[in-house]
Amino acid sequence: MSDELARRDVKALVFDVFGTVVDWRTSLIDDFSAWGKEKGIAADWTALVDAWRGAYVPSMDAVRKNPEKGFIKLDILHRQSLDMLIERFGIKGLSEADRDTINRGWHRLKPWPDSVAALTRLKTKFIIGPLSNGNVALLTNMAKNAGLPWDLILSAEVFEHFKPDPETYLGAARLLSLEPGEVMLVAAHNYDLQAAQSYGLKTAFVPRPTEYGPHQKIDFEATGDWTMVVRDLADLADRLGC
Amino acid sequence: MSDELARRDVKALVFDVFGTVVDWRTSLIDDFSAWGKEKGIAADWTALVDAWRGAYVPSMDAVRKNPEKGFIKLDILHRQSLDMLIERFGIKGLSEADRDTINRGWHRLKPWPDSVAALTRLKTKFIIGPLSNGNVALLTNMAKNAGLPWDLILSAEVFEHFKPDPETYLGAARLLSLEPGEVMLVAAHNYDLQAAQSYGLKTAFVPRPTEYGPHQKIDFEATGDWTMVVRDLADLADRLGC
Repeated sequence: MSDELARRDVKALVFDVFGTVVDWRTSLIDDFSAWGKEKGIAADWTALVDAWRGAYVPSMDAVRKNPEKGFIKLDILHRQSLDMLIERFGIKGLSEADRDTINRGWHRLKPWPDSVAALTRLKTKFIIGPLSNGNVALLTNMAKNAGLPWDLILSAEVFEHFKPDPETYLGAARLLSLEPGEVMLVAAHNYDLQAAQSYGLKTAFVPRPTEYGPHQKIDFEATGDWTMVVRDLADLADRLGC
Repeated sequence: MSDELARRDVKALVFDVFGTVVDWRTSLIDDFSAWGKEKGIAADWTALVDAWRGAYVPSMDAVRKNPEKGFIKLDILHRQSLDMLIERFGIKGLSEADRDTINRGWHRLKPWPDSVAALTRLKTKFIIGPLSNGNVALLTNMAKNAGLPWDLILSAEVFEHFKPDPETYLGAARLLSLEPGEVMLVAAHNYDLQAAQSYGLKTAFVPRPTEYGPHQKIDFEATGDWTMVVRDLADLADRLGC
């Protein structure tokens, strides 16, 4: 029944990106390992990547809890966390340009194997776009690098609020000139779907059980009553008749 | 020299849309004439389209001059003007659904013959997007209908300001994480380029001498010292080495 509901009502699919569409952890570890080897810079890149992602939610929460200080886009939060971690990990010999290259690793993330083909199919029947905490330039560059065929870029930066603030989900519907129930969030994270559902969006869970590698502790399966629960994005395209 | 300057500095090309990328006048006249014939609704569709476009700048100026009343997206301004003109032209028998169909004619505009192929070439070397007074849904639907291969949608609606307000040009650079001088506005209208240049963007003029049909009075040629003056978008792609 939920497939029919989605097929009937939904006009736009908006996607969480980090973890849902792209494999940030493997991408960054591979990218930095190759780059470090070429540059002769030794570091435990895997540990750096995991610690960097660990700083992600706290860095956004600091912005969300201090709105009087203004919105800060993710590229800048990433860079602040990176500088702190380079210090903590004692990585030596990184110039300003090197730090910028590392920070832009998030612009070079690789899609999961099913993502590009499935998005291309979904685009034939739906408006598709990211709805991500990544900033507009990050998401735009990522799409060009990875071949993600978005119709438009929807970003926390446009709404000056990070997910799971309501301004993001409701802002996406507003810019699309759609009712919240005509928009479906596709995500690998139950907390994101929970928020979207509470503001009236439809929801699709896709498991990405290797997102955090050996550190994955949650989101192996759907924990809420989502509109759809799919195996991967190809399954989503199948079930939506694309 | 200006071609070299643009090739060296510019990272993103943002496009005026109505008149520059799409032929709104012929598209709307053809669309409404065919639809009116099918529905048996008689009207001077050409006169309606010309009058409707005539109401465009005044309707945005009313929003620009009364910011305390809040921003109003173009679909709504178009609809207000349309309702007024249906009355004035004495067009009978239009239901609410009919009026919505006519209003969405702006979502169905057809590109000039050179647009899609040239944008596809330009996309290989530059970030490309509209920078239009059209709202996000209008521009997104138009791109899907017309096959415009934008990387992202930049709209007055996102900035809550219409061109030529500075918030639009500078907002585009900000969201792209670029300096104004790394962004080039491509437009068929000298006033738009004048504003963009005054805020530090690079500029490219493309003539569209049939945009207003027999009513075209200006913009047959470049009237400012723009970064580039091209024959059409294919010429722009040639000269930018795409």
